[in-house]
Amino acid sequence: MERIPILRMGKVLLVTIQVDMHDQLAVTLQDDLTSKIVETGARGVLIDISSLEVVDSFIGRILGNIATMSRVLDAQTVVVGMQPAVAITLVELGMSLPGIRTALNVEKGMALLQASMEADEAELEVPDASLED
Amino acid sequence: MERIPILRMGKVLLVTIQVDMHDQLAVTLQDDLTSKIVETGARGVLIDISSLEVVDSFIGRILGNIATMSRVLDAQTVVVGMQPAVAITLVELGMSLPGIRTALNVEKGMALLQASMEADEAELEVPDASLED
Repeated sequence: MERIPILRMGKVLLVTIQVDMHDQLAVTLQDDLTSKIVETGARGVLIDISSLEVVDSFIGRILGNIATMSRVLDAQTVVVGMQPAVAITLVELGMSLPGIRTALNVEKGMALLQASMEADEAELEVPDASLED
Repeated sequence: MERIPILRMGKVLLVTIQVDMHDQLAVTLQDDLTSKIVETGARGVLIDISSLEVVDSFIGRILGNIATMSRVLDAQTVVVGMQPAVAITLVELGMSLPGIRTALNVEKGMALLQASMEADEAELEVPDASLED
């Protein structure tokens, strides 16, 4: 069965979407990703959509779902590599991708995830700092 | 035109092959990769083939070509994620992928590339050590 591979890089899962996502493929990706987050204890999900030239409302919704599912599993999602035309289309469709962080490319997205994972860890290390007196 | 995206992560270029590579796509990938190595000064190429269930002699040759082209541009190639059945097929086809280093997954492949890049740099830093007296 066709499925989109999920690559593990340290605490980040990397997904490169290269093909047009039809319904079944998108559902499979959601299932695979959530299982993989739980299995690996990943803290971040990086989705590269640089090869998508068209993003419709269906894919927009799928990306939103993935971000929400990841969040409840304590992993952040960053979408990278969006083409200018795709950004225009999404806004014209009325989809501003709420709750999804974006970055220009994989390198910047990875840096963003690393920074926020480090911030999370720093917070955990000094729990008293966030407590009220 | 369909093309396989090449992701840059620091000094490594990451390629995830998800679709069956027909002739034109493979040639495009070779061209794109060589241009990208020159453009970015990348020192490593990581090719993930975990979603390929069948690898024929054509793809085997393409992988070999990419590795050779990368080497002459001073970048190392590591192929990761090969499925057991693919390994069996390749050997049965008489292709032992000479000159291609492999690793179990992206994480291990990246570690392999990092280690050899560091070794290269260490060598450059102490040029006298390799000179004969």
